[in-house]
Amino acid sequence: MRFSSRVDISAPNPIAAAEAAAKRAGVTLGKLNDSNPTRHGLAPALVPEVYTADPRGQRAAREALAEFLTRTYGGGAPVDPDRLYILSSTSEAYSWLIKLLCDAGDAVLAPKPGYPLIESIARLECVDTVEYQQRFDGSWYIDVAELEELLNGEHGARIRALVLINPNNPTGSYVKPSERERIVSLCREHGIAIIADEVFYDYSLEPFDGNARLAGEPGVLTFALDGFSKMLAAPHAKVGWIQVSGPDGDVAEAQHRLDVIADDYLPMSDIIARQIPALLDAAAAQTDRVRDRVRGNLALLHRLLDADEHGLVSVLRAEGGWNVLLRVPSVIDENELVLAMIDRHGLSGQPGYFFDMTSNGYLAISLLPEPDEFARNVRAVLDTVNGMLE
Amino acid sequence: MRFSSRVDISAPNPIAAAEAAAKRAGVTLGKLNDSNPTRHGLAPALVPEVYTADPRGQRAAREALAEFLTRTYGGGAPVDPDRLYILSSTSEAYSWLIKLLCDAGDAVLAPKPGYPLIESIARLECVDTVEYQQRFDGSWYIDVAELEELLNGEHGARIRALVLINPNNPTGSYVKPSERERIVSLCREHGIAIIADEVFYDYSLEPFDGNARLAGEPGVLTFALDGFSKMLAAPHAKVGWIQVSGPDGDVAEAQHRLDVIADDYLPMSDIIARQIPALLDAAAAQTDRVRDRVRGNLALLHRLLDADEHGLVSVLRAEGGWNVLLRVPSVIDENELVLAMIDRHGLSGQPGYFFDMTSNGYLAISLLPEPDEFARNVRAVLDTVNGMLE
Repeated sequence: MRFSSRVDISAPNPIAAAEAAAKRAGVTLGKLNDSNPTRHGLAPALVPEVYTADPRGQRAAREALAEFLTRTYGGGAPVDPDRLYILSSTSEAYSWLIKLLCDAGDAVLAPKPGYPLIESIARLECVDTVEYQQRFDGSWYIDVAELEELLNGEHGARIRALVLINPNNPTGSYVKPSERERIVSLCREHGIAIIADEVFYDYSLEPFDGNARLAGEPGVLTFALDGFSKMLAAPHAKVGWIQVSGPDGDVAEAQHRLDVIADDYLPMSDIIARQIPALLDAAAAQTDRVRDRVRGNLALLHRLLDADEHGLVSVLRAEGGWNVLLRVPSVIDENELVLAMIDRHGLSGQPGYFFDMTSNGYLAISLLPEPDEFARNVRAVLDTVNGMLE
Repeated sequence: MRFSSRVDISAPNPIAAAEAAAKRAGVTLGKLNDSNPTRHGLAPALVPEVYTADPRGQRAAREALAEFLTRTYGGGAPVDPDRLYILSSTSEAYSWLIKLLCDAGDAVLAPKPGYPLIESIARLECVDTVEYQQRFDGSWYIDVAELEELLNGEHGARIRALVLINPNNPTGSYVKPSERERIVSLCREHGIAIIADEVFYDYSLEPFDGNARLAGEPGVLTFALDGFSKMLAAPHAKVGWIQVSGPDGDVAEAQHRLDVIADDYLPMSDIIARQIPALLDAAAAQTDRVRDRVRGNLALLHRLLDADEHGLVSVLRAEGGWNVLLRVPSVIDENELVLAMIDRHGLSGQPGYFFDMTSNGYLAISLLPEPDEFARNVRAVLDTVNGMLE
C-alpha cells in the first residue's frame, strides 16, 4: 500500500522518543510547555471537561460508538474503538483520507452517476477524479470490468483510492456481494485503498440479499465513513467517523499517518462529544422514523405515478437511500423542465446531468418531505411534464 | 490578487442562475431534491434546530460574534457578520485559506522562530513554507527588508500568502505599527494576502503602544483568525473564525471562492453554535482570569530566576501570549537538557530548535499552570541546568 508524501512521519527527535518510551512504560511525564488550559483549572464553566486532545476523538465517545456499531451491525468481530476516528463530517473524512493517500496530481475513482461533492473535495486537495460507471439494466450495477481497465489504463498508476458509495446517491444502489468480492481483490492487487461511504446504508427501500456494510472489510485497506447526518437525520450535529480495517500491517501504517493528520486538526468539540452516547441512544428510533417516511413516500410515489393518465413519468428502481430518480420523457430538455417547474410551481430541482447521468431525461426527487408536501411535489412534476408535452 | 485553481467557480448552470435570481427577488423556491431532514419535521429531539447549512456559519452565531468583536475591539467600523466565517479551529481556517490562495507547489511565508503547525498543515495541502525571521535584540522584531528580498527572490512568484502571528508563539512578540505599515504595503504591491493569527492577542504581558489587531485591516486582503481556544481557554469547544477584510473587490472575490470551500465542509455543529452567545458572555471573565494567571506566573518566574544563586537561566522578554522562552547556557545541548529533566524530574519540554531558534540554548515554558506547579517546573529547570554544569 502506497501513501502520500504529505504526511511528515520522519523519525522522532530524542525528546519525542523519550516521551514515547515513558508512555509505553506507563509513566506520565509533566510538560514544561503545556499549553492546555483545561489541565490547569482554567476551563470555562460551560465546557468544564479536561481536554484530552486525542487525535482519534474522545475515548469515551469512541467506546460508546464502537459498542453501538458492534451491537447494531455486528455479528462478526466487535468494532475496536482504536480503529475509529470521530470527526465533524464525512466531507472532512474525505479530505483527510485523500491527504493520506494521494499526492497532488494523483486520482481517486468515483462512481458516476454520483454526487458531485467528491469531485469538488478532491479538486480542493489537488487530486483528480476518475469516473467509473454504474450501469442500469432494470437495476444498477458496477461495471467491474471497466474498473479493471481503468486501473490498468493510462491513469492507473495515479489512482490511489476507490470511492464506493453504499448505497450510491442518487441511484440508490448497494454494492452487491459478487461485486464486492471482485472489487476487493482488484484493489488488493493494485495496492489501492477503498473509501466506503455508507451514510445511507440503513435506508433500504426494498428487501435485498446478502449485502453488508463494507465497514470492517478485512481483505484490503478500507476506510468506511458514516455519521449522524443520515443515521439520526441530524446533519447539523456534525458528527461523522472513519472505521479503518484491512490487513494488519496496512492498517497500522495507515493509522500511524492518519494520526498525524488528525493531530493537526484535533478532535471534535467536547460540547458535542459529551452528547454522543445520548445521540446513539436515539439513533435506532430516528432511523426507523426516517425509514418509514422514505418508504411511505416511495409507495405514495408509485401510486401517484400509476394514477396519472398521461403515464409520462416513471421511477427508476432504487434499493436504498433518501432520493430516487424520476424518468421523464427524454424529448424534454432537463434544464427547460426545471426552469418550467420553477416558473409554474416555485419548485426547483436537480436533473440527471447534475449527477452525470449518461442520457437526458432524469430528475432527482427527495423522499423526505411530509407526505402532503411530497404529493404536491410529485404533482408539480407531473403537471409540468404533461404541460410541456401538450 | 491571485487565487488558486482548486476552487470551481465556473459559471452557474441555468438552474442555479434561476435559483440565484429568485433569491435576489426575495422568492423562496421549494426544492424537489431537498435532502435536509430537519426541514421535514425529522430532526431528533436532542438537536431540534432546523439546519440552515449556511456555509459561513449560523447567522445568529455570526451576529452575536460580530456584536462581541465590535464591542470588545471596535472603535472603528462595526464588524460585518457577513465577513465572518465560523468554523471548528484555526487549523481548519489555515487549510481553507491555503486551499483558497495556493495551488500545489505554491508557498506561504511563515515566521521563524514559530510554531511548527503551519508548516505541517501547509505540507498536507501540498504547499511549501518559506521562513522569514523574527530577530531578537532585546525585543523581537520582523526583518521586513528580508521579507521584501524573499518576495523578490527566486521563490517570490510562488509565495501567495504571508502568515503573521500577532503575537507570535513562543516569542510572544506583537506586530508593531511601523512593521505593519511596511508589511501591508509590501503585500499589496506583490498581490499576496495576509493570514493573521491573533489567538493570543488578548494576552499582553507588558504595556505596549499603538499595536492593534490586524483583523479589519483595509489596506490588503486580510484573513484574521481567532477562536475560543485561547480567548476562553477552551480548546475543546472547537470554535474558531475567520474575519475577512481588505479592498472591497478583493474581499468580494475571496468570499465568492471561500464560500465554495465552506459549502463543501458546511458549518459547525448547531449543538455548539447554540452555545456561542453564552460562551461569548463568558469570554471577558475567562480572558481576565487567564491573563491574571500568566502575568502572575511571569512575575513569579522573574522572582525565582533572580533568587537563584547560580544565575544561569534567564527569560527572554515576551510581549504577549501564554509561553515564554528561557535562555539556558548554550554549552548545554538542548536535547540533553530535556532528557535530563525527564530523567530527574519526570518533566518533558520543548527546546528552542523545535521552533527553529537560530542558536542553541532555549526552552519554552508555559505560564498557565497553577502557581505551585509552575514554581516546581521552574525549579526543575534550574535544578537540571545547575546540575549539568556542576
